[in-house]
Amino acid sequence: MADGINRQILLVEKPTGKLAPSHFKMSEAAIPEPKDGEVLLRVRYISLDAANRAWMHGATYRSAVEANTVMAGGGIAEVVTSKAPGFAAGDIVFGDTGWQDYAAVPAKHLSKTPRIEPMTHLLSVYGIAGLTAYFGLLHVGRPKAGETVVVSAAAGSVGSIVGQIAKIKGCRVIGIAGGKEKCQWLTSELGFDAAVDYKDGAVFKALRAAAPGGIDVYFDNVGGDILEACLPLMNLHGRIACCGAISQYDGVPSATGPRGIPGLIVVKRLTMQGFIVMDYMDQRDQALADLQAWVAAGKLKVQEDVIDGLQNTPQALIGLLAGENRGKRMIKV
Amino acid sequence: MADGINRQILLVEKPTGKLAPSHFKMSEAAIPEPKDGEVLLRVRYISLDAANRAWMHGATYRSAVEANTVMAGGGIAEVVTSKAPGFAAGDIVFGDTGWQDYAAVPAKHLSKTPRIEPMTHLLSVYGIAGLTAYFGLLHVGRPKAGETVVVSAAAGSVGSIVGQIAKIKGCRVIGIAGGKEKCQWLTSELGFDAAVDYKDGAVFKALRAAAPGGIDVYFDNVGGDILEACLPLMNLHGRIACCGAISQYDGVPSATGPRGIPGLIVVKRLTMQGFIVMDYMDQRDQALADLQAWVAAGKLKVQEDVIDGLQNTPQALIGLLAGENRGKRMIKV
Repeated sequence: MADGINRQILLVEKPTGKLAPSHFKMSEAAIPEPKDGEVLLRVRYISLDAANRAWMHGATYRSAVEANTVMAGGGIAEVVTSKAPGFAAGDIVFGDTGWQDYAAVPAKHLSKTPRIEPMTHLLSVYGIAGLTAYFGLLHVGRPKAGETVVVSAAAGSVGSIVGQIAKIKGCRVIGIAGGKEKCQWLTSELGFDAAVDYKDGAVFKALRAAAPGGIDVYFDNVGGDILEACLPLMNLHGRIACCGAISQYDGVPSATGPRGIPGLIVVKRLTMQGFIVMDYMDQRDQALADLQAWVAAGKLKVQEDVIDGLQNTPQALIGLLAGENRGKRMIKV
Repeated sequence: MADGINRQILLVEKPTGKLAPSHFKMSEAAIPEPKDGEVLLRVRYISLDAANRAWMHGATYRSAVEANTVMAGGGIAEVVTSKAPGFAAGDIVFGDTGWQDYAAVPAKHLSKTPRIEPMTHLLSVYGIAGLTAYFGLLHVGRPKAGETVVVSAAAGSVGSIVGQIAKIKGCRVIGIAGGKEKCQWLTSELGFDAAVDYKDGAVFKALRAAAPGGIDVYFDNVGGDILEACLPLMNLHGRIACCGAISQYDGVPSATGPRGIPGLIVVKRLTMQGFIVMDYMDQRDQALADLQAWVAAGKLKVQEDVIDGLQNTPQALIGLLAGENRGKRMIKV
């Protein structure tokens, strides 16, 4: 990175089908000057999330990302200069920095984080991923000891933590992931009771075999066919925590929804509940205390997939959407 | 009805497509003798419900109805003779009597009801319909005063009560029903704020116009296209009470589900929850007290559609599935 230069990755075109490198362009600008109420940030790590792709479809829980602007994305950054009370040079913050070296961001959109080592944990287990897993499983899924919990995208940043928390809470845990290697990793390294490889044929049959007593909680990261496969296996009064719909993000969203809705919802008296982590931020301290204690006790393993270099961000997101990561993927800027 | 004869309507064939009179047959048998623990009932009123049709597809919250047996169905009956403690001749009970003049039923499957006038209210506002509306709206939908509530099959037994309770609770209420006349009745007689005729073109557009502030609670009796039309109009943290899926019962169930699931569930943080009234029976006394008070105060109008004659039961169900009833349809035996 040359002095005084801010490298940026622009979204130059909104994809209508699959996301490709050609939708992005590397560009250079001057390092911005923070205005009053803003801070200038040096971005350290950029978070890669399936949601990045969903933002390109239109407004979700945030406004849509627009073509010919710096691609949006959460990151961990260090304050360079501050024109906002409460922030000083050297502070570590989390916020939507976008895909660039430097960002001038209104302080009210930033949250200060403790200075912990490794800093990457602020994006994985103590970041959005860990908190999403924590609140989604415990507050939406509400598993009881002895119940069967199924999680999809189980080798991903959120899923890998969901499954481990469910084990800590005394549940039987089944992960759904793509590929033998990931499945092997879930059972041998993370302590999952079983894993189903969705690339290896019919998910429904494999899942039925892995969950002979049915499913009490399904933590859904993917939607689509896998949600459809889980529905008939849900037990009475089962809960489906709707966290995301990765299967629908990259390409044209499906013209239909999962079969069995609402019929099976009624007959089995299921609850399907959507959530986003921001709705639970008032309970963040408790969540972080629990997560830290579990990590310290060796009960919760943190898996990270750190890729070096801002220029690799587009390809890293494309790969994440294709399921090539294990644990939390991020870019070291 | 000749002396000593028990007229019965048998389901002679399970329909694969639309239900037709040819699926039923009138038959005669001897009046049964109750065994120990059973009571002999004289059936007075048979309840007609969309769920009757759903039972023919297979096991739901009850076992499937089988061909060449008396068609199952709830009814209000009078005890003729009792071989069970706690039941005596003249008692009025509710239970699955089936479509027949007389039934010998285990006492443990019956619930005694008070002797009220008109007795038909035991199947409408104080029966499954009224309690389903009450618990589904208040415990699952959880509307707050000022919120917008939408109910489908709004002119039916459950929907007509749901909308009126929502009005009592200070909500803005929109009913979805088939035909101008029903819609007119909802707004002019039952006090709904607006009604959408699903037979009159695009439901989504009409609903959007009727609910400019979005929908907070959708009480879903129908599933299918109407559920799909409501989803994009739901407000953040909206609730969908899944009561039934009438649109899916009569014929071959749809091969797909509503679009936008789970994507919209996540983004809008919706809760979709299935329920059946039996799960709330421990709170029945409170519900009945409220319902009786509202009826007495003239706040809740009871609409019934009573058809005379056991022989008309098949056609009455077929008509109900086609939406020809207004309020609670039943057969006077």
